[in-house]
Amino acid sequence: MSTLLKGAPVAAAINEKTKARVAHLRARGVIPTLALVRVGENDADIYYEKGAMKRCAALEIETKPVTLPVDVTEAELLSKIDELNRDSAVHGVLIFRPLPRHISDDAVRAALSPDKDVDGITDGSLAGVFTGSGRGFCPCTAQSCAEILDFYGVDCSGKRAAVLGRSLVIGKPVSQLLLARNATVTVCHTKTRDLPSETKRADIIVAAVGHLRALTADMVSPNQVIIDVGINTDESGKMVGDADFPATEPIVSAITPVPGGVGSVTTSLLAAHTVEAAERQNNIM
Amino acid sequence: MSTLLKGAPVAAAINEKTKARVAHLRARGVIPTLALVRVGENDADIYYEKGAMKRCAALEIETKPVTLPVDVTEAELLSKIDELNRDSAVHGVLIFRPLPRHISDDAVRAALSPDKDVDGITDGSLAGVFTGSGRGFCPCTAQSCAEILDFYGVDCSGKRAAVLGRSLVIGKPVSQLLLARNATVTVCHTKTRDLPSETKRADIIVAAVGHLRALTADMVSPNQVIIDVGINTDESGKMVGDADFPATEPIVSAITPVPGGVGSVTTSLLAAHTVEAAERQNNIM
Repeated sequence: MSTLLKGAPVAAAINEKTKARVAHLRARGVIPTLALVRVGENDADIYYEKGAMKRCAALEIETKPVTLPVDVTEAELLSKIDELNRDSAVHGVLIFRPLPRHISDDAVRAALSPDKDVDGITDGSLAGVFTGSGRGFCPCTAQSCAEILDFYGVDCSGKRAAVLGRSLVIGKPVSQLLLARNATVTVCHTKTRDLPSETKRADIIVAAVGHLRALTADMVSPNQVIIDVGINTDESGKMVGDADFPATEPIVSAITPVPGGVGSVTTSLLAAHTVEAAERQNNIM
Repeated sequence: MSTLLKGAPVAAAINEKTKARVAHLRARGVIPTLALVRVGENDADIYYEKGAMKRCAALEIETKPVTLPVDVTEAELLSKIDELNRDSAVHGVLIFRPLPRHISDDAVRAALSPDKDVDGITDGSLAGVFTGSGRGFCPCTAQSCAEILDFYGVDCSGKRAAVLGRSLVIGKPVSQLLLARNATVTVCHTKTRDLPSETKRADIIVAAVGHLRALTADMVSPNQVIIDVGINTDESGKMVGDADFPATEPIVSAITPVPGGVGSVTTSLLAAHTVEAAERQNNIM
């Protein structure tokens, strides 16, 4: 049986630090505030929004939900973002994506100030992840993977890490975080030939494929640590990850559950980033 | 015997396209101009500056050498960069690095406009490489590696690529270029355990280690393509790459020579980027 790398204790440790930082800010008259910009009534967005607002409330971080109709024009959305950029009472801005098709994702990413980009969607934040400069913020889900490894004492240095997926939200940034932790990182994707030979030889696998059973028993080995980023629904309507959990869990050394793994750390990081943004914007350390 | 992937024909093909674009710009009254900012009298800088100026002259691109004393203050250098950013007659700016220790590299990188950053040193350019947005410019040496593979018809899709080195100048950007070409990319570095097992199984090796004989016969396999980015001096004073050329060349399928490989493409890319910058800045396509 493998070790279950649950997200809850990781989140709790992050929240504890955040709480102290919020108190420090509030004592200096700064109320850390996160704006959540949602276009339309997508179920997944509403679900995440709820979770984020609950997390922020528990940490005494203010939230400012900005809900726009699904047919809002690009110009209206950009002007709202500009308003939030200039509002010194708002420290972080989360924009739910994907956006409706009539709105340019690039234009939205370019409009947001990297200083308030607490979920790492701007070029400024992504450059910070790539160069290691610390500018902007890392995408929360990618950082969750690294926080889980750090929390459970998985030393990445010199280890082989296989990252499945190359998106800007997870695959690419998590590969940079692993590289910064001195792992030898292989980025795999849909064009990778013989994926099992890449995954079997890895010490750490980060699965961010977005498909049910993308990581099967024949692709894993003993002594591996599996970080499962997937959120999928199986045939019976149950939420499952990218790994075939019942088949892979008995083989590997440690694995994150879904739900209860990577996903349960993200809102804590969103809150922590908002506090960090408030600190930076007010020169309070 | 392996195929020698010489840089000269790659450079010639790039130059031919650049020439036509320069003529197109000049016919519209735009004289593409590259500023070369050098601090001090470093031999390697002067050597590269000479080559770049010669290349530009042959392509009818103007050059504007800006030479500052080695004890120039950071403020003076930043003000010079600001002046070049604002000078509409200058389209590209190359800044020789490393800079003297009393000058912050980060401050210099942040000062340069990404629009004129023809050697890809700014966060804007590096974000463009990371996200694939095409913003800014790729570092010339990293792009040289990809141009050589493209020119010689090496299809990267689905192939295993091992990149040795993780610098922002070569290792990291070249890994993104290979990923964009659908290779399965492994980034190796000083902390990588069992480097030969990573390199032996690769189809393509990009060696950017910066050490004499970093890639030896026991680390390579038949059918491999080796791109050697190293520029080192051997015991007899001869310029050599990272690969032990006499020992590895007979084993592999193809290899870039040093000198005459990657390095002989970079100034052509610098010129091409300057022309691209002039086109973008004047909305001429």
